[in-house]
Amino acid sequence: MEVTPNHTQTVAGWAAMNESGKVEPFVFKRRENGVDDVTIKVQYCGMCHTDLHFIQNDWGITMYPLVPGHEITGVVTKVGSNVSGFRVGDRVGVGCIAASCLYCDHCRRSEENYCDKVTLTYNGVFWDGSVTYGGYSRMLVAHKRFLVRVPDTLPLDAAAPLLCAGITVYSPMKHHGMLRSPGGSLGVVGLGGLGHVAVKFAKAFGLRVTVISTSPAKEKEAKERLGADHFVVSTDQKQMQAMERSLDYVIDTVSAKHSLGPILELLKVNGKLVLVAAPDQPVELPSFPLIFGKRTVSGSMTGGMKETQEMLDLCGKHNITCDIELVSTDGINEALARLARNDVRYRFVIDIAGDSNSKL
Amino acid sequence: MEVTPNHTQTVAGWAAMNESGKVEPFVFKRRENGVDDVTIKVQYCGMCHTDLHFIQNDWGITMYPLVPGHEITGVVTKVGSNVSGFRVGDRVGVGCIAASCLYCDHCRRSEENYCDKVTLTYNGVFWDGSVTYGGYSRMLVAHKRFLVRVPDTLPLDAAAPLLCAGITVYSPMKHHGMLRSPGGSLGVVGLGGLGHVAVKFAKAFGLRVTVISTSPAKEKEAKERLGADHFVVSTDQKQMQAMERSLDYVIDTVSAKHSLGPILELLKVNGKLVLVAAPDQPVELPSFPLIFGKRTVSGSMTGGMKETQEMLDLCGKHNITCDIELVSTDGINEALARLARNDVRYRFVIDIAGDSNSKL
Repeated sequence: MEVTPNHTQTVAGWAAMNESGKVEPFVFKRRENGVDDVTIKVQYCGMCHTDLHFIQNDWGITMYPLVPGHEITGVVTKVGSNVSGFRVGDRVGVGCIAASCLYCDHCRRSEENYCDKVTLTYNGVFWDGSVTYGGYSRMLVAHKRFLVRVPDTLPLDAAAPLLCAGITVYSPMKHHGMLRSPGGSLGVVGLGGLGHVAVKFAKAFGLRVTVISTSPAKEKEAKERLGADHFVVSTDQKQMQAMERSLDYVIDTVSAKHSLGPILELLKVNGKLVLVAAPDQPVELPSFPLIFGKRTVSGSMTGGMKETQEMLDLCGKHNITCDIELVSTDGINEALARLARNDVRYRFVIDIAGDSNSKL
Repeated sequence: MEVTPNHTQTVAGWAAMNESGKVEPFVFKRRENGVDDVTIKVQYCGMCHTDLHFIQNDWGITMYPLVPGHEITGVVTKVGSNVSGFRVGDRVGVGCIAASCLYCDHCRRSEENYCDKVTLTYNGVFWDGSVTYGGYSRMLVAHKRFLVRVPDTLPLDAAAPLLCAGITVYSPMKHHGMLRSPGGSLGVVGLGGLGHVAVKFAKAFGLRVTVISTSPAKEKEAKERLGADHFVVSTDQKQMQAMERSLDYVIDTVSAKHSLGPILELLKVNGKLVLVAAPDQPVELPSFPLIFGKRTVSGSMTGGMKETQEMLDLCGKHNITCDIELVSTDGINEALARLARNDVRYRFVIDIAGDSNSKL
């Protein structure tokens, strides 16, 4: 394993310095580009809800100063001598993972996300002991293993959130066989950053999609813009009861504390619910709808590197991107405040390079 | 579907008349033996924790008078003209199911337990509109579909609890591939009626078994009598931490309210937990151990008729029975009181016929 302990490159970025919920300009050092590394000029960085959790230290594990961002797209500017497959000028992406052990069973199967020693793209501890800094910054040095290629057909701004939101729903959809079940029925709970991409994948693979939301106002958009087949207001008991035992799968993207009971009732016998959000309070799991329907609740967290590349290639083929609101680097704090109110359709993406007119 | 509305046969049994938690002698009528029916002299009936829930009306759905009992073994005394495969004198069993629609997809796949119209052996509503009475009674009329054969090698008393406790753990163990995973590791949470049979099945199929219990006192018995390989006290954080990411499967048999978090941490990535108990309060499901380990929580409720017969045949082959305490019909109320305190190793079985010396 090649490690470059020399943190000599000066980078401008944006960091949270404390729990105030805001970021400010921050200049820091990154490692030199090692023989296995690729240096990227960051063009865009998506704003994931996880960024907010870390900025506010919601989980009590934040190491300040924190440079958030793990939905990163950009252009290669430097390539190590031991790197093949990437060249200067290539359009690339970096997601949630900066490093893993490379040698365990999970790494061998390209499930780097489940490696015991996984290092996240920010707030992680890298091989050389340094704390990782994320994509709210103008430049990034990435190990070649944790870099993916962005298909030419995808715009770098709307593709950025695929690196987290996209792979987070794609991985369990593939793992649980949803993408091999055309005609099957999927419920998507919560229509936000994760949910709206799940709807797009599902429609691309021929599933019938029901969006389940607390907001009746989202029905029109869910159906007309995203192509959902049905829409159910989760607080309307009559609508929910009419749907009982009708779905093969559910993807639950809601990070607020909630009970899985009413959602489980929507599943057929043997139906599968996948939880992809990370509510900080335990969710309630009533035993009756679980055991009476032989149903399953699974978790999933992002995805491995091979399936991230596979997902991006499929997005290129099916023309799937995220619906985004582009914000300038001056607007990050305003966007964070709106994100805290879930006031975004469906993902903020920061125009880091500030040259979005260049049509990269 | 042949229905016999004539409830003309007088039967002596034991019924709960109210929520007092006790039963008393009760004489009632059963239907005539129809062309598709088999009449059984009940020899033994296991006492399931579910009986206690129904007797006390814990779930608010009890119809008094309630004749409990769904772990029934006995001998055939009458066979309808449309019945093949059973003859007078045969040793048979009846479990949790008295009827189902017979025609839906679940019934066609012999998943009668998940049929929308499943009728339980007691406190259910039968095809003719009558309320079903269970095995705390001297005689039973069963539809041929819901009857199984007890292998000659199994004693009818210790085999009785297999009809519920046995199939309840066997079905998910088969469904989730545990019985095809010799050398795999299984955690059994709770060492009661369900748990101790799960240990026996697991050992018969070559799994390594860890019993996880709040009672350190159970270690000796778990290892020496039941053959468990390891024992972990679930309240001992050090022991629990040492087991993290080590198990392929967990069967959770605990019906008290509890958090699944510490148990999920014991599972490897992709590990599967099956909940077979029915806590009346929702269990707590923290999202982090679920999503960080891509783990799965499934429910399961008893089993279908074909797999119940298959399970009994396997028990015959591997000589698996339940460890029981035999009680006389005079001792039912005392046994119920002990059951409420979980003071039983591991299942009470009522000697209904009172002729246990006949060595049936």
